[in-house]
Amino acid sequence: MGINISNFLSSKSNNRKMTEFQDLDHLDGLSISTVSANLYNNSRDDLVMFYFREGANFASVYTQSKILSENIKWNLNQKSKKIFSLLVNTRNANAFTGEQGYQSMQNIAEIVSEELSKKQLIDEDSPKKIKAKDIIFGCTGTIGEKFPVDKIKFKIPELIKNIKYTQNKYIWMKAALGIMTTDTQPKIAMEECLIGQSRIKIYGIAKGSGMIHPNMATTLGYIFTDADLPNDVLKKLLKKNVEETFNAISCDGDTSTNDMITIFSTCKAKHRKINSFSEKKLKFFDEALRKVLLNLAKRVVADGEGASKFITVQIIKSRTEHEAKKIAFSIANSPLVKTAIAGEDPNWGRIIMAIGKSEAEINLKKLSIKFGDIQIVQNGKLHNQYNEKETAEYMKHSNIEITVNVASGNKNFTAYTMDLTKKYIEINADYRS
Amino acid sequence: MGINISNFLSSKSNNRKMTEFQDLDHLDGLSISTVSANLYNNSRDDLVMFYFREGANFASVYTQSKILSENIKWNLNQKSKKIFSLLVNTRNANAFTGEQGYQSMQNIAEIVSEELSKKQLIDEDSPKKIKAKDIIFGCTGTIGEKFPVDKIKFKIPELIKNIKYTQNKYIWMKAALGIMTTDTQPKIAMEECLIGQSRIKIYGIAKGSGMIHPNMATTLGYIFTDADLPNDVLKKLLKKNVEETFNAISCDGDTSTNDMITIFSTCKAKHRKINSFSEKKLKFFDEALRKVLLNLAKRVVADGEGASKFITVQIIKSRTEHEAKKIAFSIANSPLVKTAIAGEDPNWGRIIMAIGKSEAEINLKKLSIKFGDIQIVQNGKLHNQYNEKETAEYMKHSNIEITVNVASGNKNFTAYTMDLTKKYIEINADYRS
Repeated sequence: MGINISNFLSSKSNNRKMTEFQDLDHLDGLSISTVSANLYNNSRDDLVMFYFREGANFASVYTQSKILSENIKWNLNQKSKKIFSLLVNTRNANAFTGEQGYQSMQNIAEIVSEELSKKQLIDEDSPKKIKAKDIIFGCTGTIGEKFPVDKIKFKIPELIKNIKYTQNKYIWMKAALGIMTTDTQPKIAMEECLIGQSRIKIYGIAKGSGMIHPNMATTLGYIFTDADLPNDVLKKLLKKNVEETFNAISCDGDTSTNDMITIFSTCKAKHRKINSFSEKKLKFFDEALRKVLLNLAKRVVADGEGASKFITVQIIKSRTEHEAKKIAFSIANSPLVKTAIAGEDPNWGRIIMAIGKSEAEINLKKLSIKFGDIQIVQNGKLHNQYNEKETAEYMKHSNIEITVNVASGNKNFTAYTMDLTKKYIEINADYRS
Repeated sequence: MGINISNFLSSKSNNRKMTEFQDLDHLDGLSISTVSANLYNNSRDDLVMFYFREGANFASVYTQSKILSENIKWNLNQKSKKIFSLLVNTRNANAFTGEQGYQSMQNIAEIVSEELSKKQLIDEDSPKKIKAKDIIFGCTGTIGEKFPVDKIKFKIPELIKNIKYTQNKYIWMKAALGIMTTDTQPKIAMEECLIGQSRIKIYGIAKGSGMIHPNMATTLGYIFTDADLPNDVLKKLLKKNVEETFNAISCDGDTSTNDMITIFSTCKAKHRKINSFSEKKLKFFDEALRKVLLNLAKRVVADGEGASKFITVQIIKSRTEHEAKKIAFSIANSPLVKTAIAGEDPNWGRIIMAIGKSEAEINLKKLSIKFGDIQIVQNGKLHNQYNEKETAEYMKHSNIEITVNVASGNKNFTAYTMDLTKKYIEINADYRS
């Protein structure tokens, strides 16, 4: 299941027609390797290594949950300035695994760093000594099961043997497939832009599938660029752009134990040194990064478990962005709204209900609501030309846009979600079986 | 669908074995009348009148939504000290109906008060002149549709003609059925208690069916007693007891436009005057009222749309009640938890996830979790005798109890909810068709 992605992406901020998957290509300084560690008891790839032979600058944003998975704790504890490898496994979230989970990270990081150091001696002119603290982890899957450290350790030699120094679209696809759990489609996105005169690549993959509260499923997003940017600049760029992309598909604080979005820069591009986040030269990079993140975030929503429709909830002219966000998520997270949309029912009363319960201060007399271009409510009243039949026709689209104009300020916020179908229940009731 | 109610009520705070429905009886000073105003285009009763021939003291708690239905606005605007009639209609919520909706209330209240005044002249020794402001309304159904004022007005004479001055279990059942919308079962509860030497009746009916956020479906609860209590005492008793009953099945602020719980006292019982909420004589009444409200609230949850299991989420030893509540609702409202339970999957990892996202400050090392009597997590670790098979057996019960001990204080909170099934989606996607 899942929505036809090209369908909704084509009409959005990226103006050009998009094919379903962009072809990601070689990115200097990065290598990718995948393997099946048999974590699922079948032969799918479930262990993916990203290897930066000269190290990579990086920045991460992590879950807001008060309970952190052991890999996130590990990542937060390492103080390396450059990362040499990101290792991602599926099937087991390494959350609530305690000492055993954390020690597994330590153990695997030591083996990986040793093996990669040996490889450096063979492959590199000036080999680096890679340390355990230069390795970070992404984990996703079931919470509370013992971490399968032995299965993973056993496969590290093969994983490292598989490393190739050039990538093509196939290895990117394998990586995107290798990090999936309940996803029905891999998520891949790319942009190119200029920093000064240098052509820069921004490649990304993600996993996660939207739910009633999308972020309750672990979301992983990894961005790779050849731009030469320091860690603090990467951090600011990432935080800023996650706000209106990955955080626009989730309600604040409503996150899994494992959420992680990281940007790596291999620094291979030749452009003048960037010292600060506010440099004008970064404008295109900033925009392109936002596009990649938004593209991936939308793919996460569109692959919502059992989703049949993609829903954009746009709140405009709000007093504050905080208030716009509250209203947007109150609608986007309302199971009554989402089931009505699944049923193709133009039940705008449920939108009103969701606005009412958002705790935002609303002047009802100014409120206007549109479904697509159809005016439903205008200045607090049902529009005098409201036509239920026409609106019911609109609800048959696979791409539903709800716009709420609260006419009390100039702040906007857009949230993205999907409908709530029977298929969702099926997937989630039977997740572990 | 819906759960077998006697099943879970029998094991709860009411220690005696309960039959499915208690038989409510005559309550002095109250009359009930029901009719079909054809609001559903079939012959079901959809208009219910409660008539207090000598007026009733009363107190209400209403929805916290920022968008109020027109009947709630009407009720809030009336400043009567005694109410002579409560009129409840289904099918139309009279919400977002603006001027037309409010005027309809005025219009109906005028007709009802006139007709009842006429009736007083015939029936009563000292007839009262009943005014429009002595009438209040409960409305429930679809939001945003024009209020069917004419259909209702047309039926008022019949409704008043049907009034009988004594009740039996059948008329109570008709009333409970007459206020239902998507409910699959009527909700009726009663207790008797003493105030001083007087035997007091507390009768109640409710409608509403639990959802992911239960209060998003309109909840109506009406309590009737013959106790002789002033309005301010009723108000305090109601507010206090709603907190751990009807508000324990809903997340704060997450309410429909129409929620309303009202207690009416006909003052027919002969007991010494009660002047204050804190009088010791009220102890039994207070407890009995709580039981009636909890009984009704549980019936609302158990009739959760498509529910197959009743879930009790008990948070104990929390630092504050506020924090206990946050954790309880984070679990009780988690679709991932609720689908796992529907699937009879002992996926305790999802409980951990829900605790983590609750924003409560948790000391993981002290956390313990039980399913029923089975210890799952103890002091932050999977219990050393944890047996998945045994736990899977437990999940087959229709009554699931989750206890989370956060071991950081002495405050408790219990929330009640149901599982999330495919049936839920069916009902909600097709609500209006």
